[in-house]
Amino acid sequence: MLWRRGSALSEQDVVDALAQAAVANIVSGMIVGLGAGRTAARGVRALAERVRDDKLDIQCVAASNATEALARELGLPLTDFALVEEIDILIDGADEVDKDMRVMKGSRGAMTRERMLAWASRHCVFMVDEQKVSDKIGTLTSLPVALMAFGLSSTRRAIRDLGLNGVCRRDLDGNFFLTDNGNLVLDIKLNGQEDLEHLAAQLNDLPGVIDHGLFLSEADVILIDHKGEVERLER
Amino acid sequence: MLWRRGSALSEQDVVDALAQAAVANIVSGMIVGLGAGRTAARGVRALAERVRDDKLDIQCVAASNATEALARELGLPLTDFALVEEIDILIDGADEVDKDMRVMKGSRGAMTRERMLAWASRHCVFMVDEQKVSDKIGTLTSLPVALMAFGLSSTRRAIRDLGLNGVCRRDLDGNFFLTDNGNLVLDIKLNGQEDLEHLAAQLNDLPGVIDHGLFLSEADVILIDHKGEVERLER
Repeated sequence: MLWRRGSALSEQDVVDALAQAAVANIVSGMIVGLGAGRTAARGVRALAERVRDDKLDIQCVAASNATEALARELGLPLTDFALVEEIDILIDGADEVDKDMRVMKGSRGAMTRERMLAWASRHCVFMVDEQKVSDKIGTLTSLPVALMAFGLSSTRRAIRDLGLNGVCRRDLDGNFFLTDNGNLVLDIKLNGQEDLEHLAAQLNDLPGVIDHGLFLSEADVILIDHKGEVERLER
Repeated sequence: MLWRRGSALSEQDVVDALAQAAVANIVSGMIVGLGAGRTAARGVRALAERVRDDKLDIQCVAASNATEALARELGLPLTDFALVEEIDILIDGADEVDKDMRVMKGSRGAMTRERMLAWASRHCVFMVDEQKVSDKIGTLTSLPVALMAFGLSSTRRAIRDLGLNGVCRRDLDGNFFLTDNGNLVLDIKLNGQEDLEHLAAQLNDLPGVIDHGLFLSEADVILIDHKGEVERLER
């Protein structure tokens, strides 16, 4: 049975073809990176099933405290990313992907840690549902940019000077949203005309910018869930 | 009387020609950035004298908590850098400078905040004593690189892959030294053959690298203290 939205079964009870495809090639001896967010959590569950059913001997590192807690709850062996030189495979979700294998991340503000994991990984697999696919990332979602509070106004001015306008993300109480690393997040609506590679380089050059959501070259594989049928894009 | 090392007078009592030169062009209405460290503190003292003697009406922003405390103690008006879009002039020290106006910073691990200030400043003035001048920065001092603890081993591996070897800075108790922003510092001994512009770009590309000590294009003016005679390099 394929996993379908709107199924009467709860998410945990059904077969999740997307997440299963993401973890299909994991074998014993691997160090596996686990991204942050809801889609990554589906990967964590599918991985826990494989570890149990196939007696896999692996080690995991997690991008967020929430993912780490879930992995621990499911009995996945965790190791400290500070001690890991290289990750064999990263399983993560994405906010938006395009046919050029570009990925937008950071809707939860965890992009810094997620990029660290992606960058340390030999092989990066991103999973999305089909409604997250666009012709060009930034069409469906905003571009999140993590900023240091120190010097915030000068950094925002510099971002305006790049022709970009954003709003500082706030939580439900109206306070500034802070990332796991204590940074602010500016959400920028793109106009679709930007050269994303150039834009990423410009943002990287600003000292007050910690990171941003443009993952332009990280993805090795993108898996797209078409209502239970999984499409595979490979670089 | 010129300020001289080894003078019987204390540092505060003598005329500090270097620091006076650094603050000579500051006028009322300016927002002044104050760097971190001992040489920057000389600039703070000279600035406080000018504010008192010339009744300057200025606002200051500080790169470190220590500098902020000193400025407050000396009665300099402070404002929050988070609210400042542009700084008129930055007064800072440096660990090493060369004749190409390149500056090495970060011996105290404050380079991230110092770069933020430098980058927000229309005009950057760095002060050094003559023994800090070399043909090429990195000859006299190590290159400090601030790293996230998250993913430390993979970042160190990547730095090794660039052909660089470093040691993690420790405090006097043997614990890892942490910057004001909670990052680790790797001190790298250069061999003098590196292309520093290329090296800076390579380090900027590593997601686990927060910042480094290479300030290659920030300096507008470098003031060098030759035993009381001040030499001025200008870009």
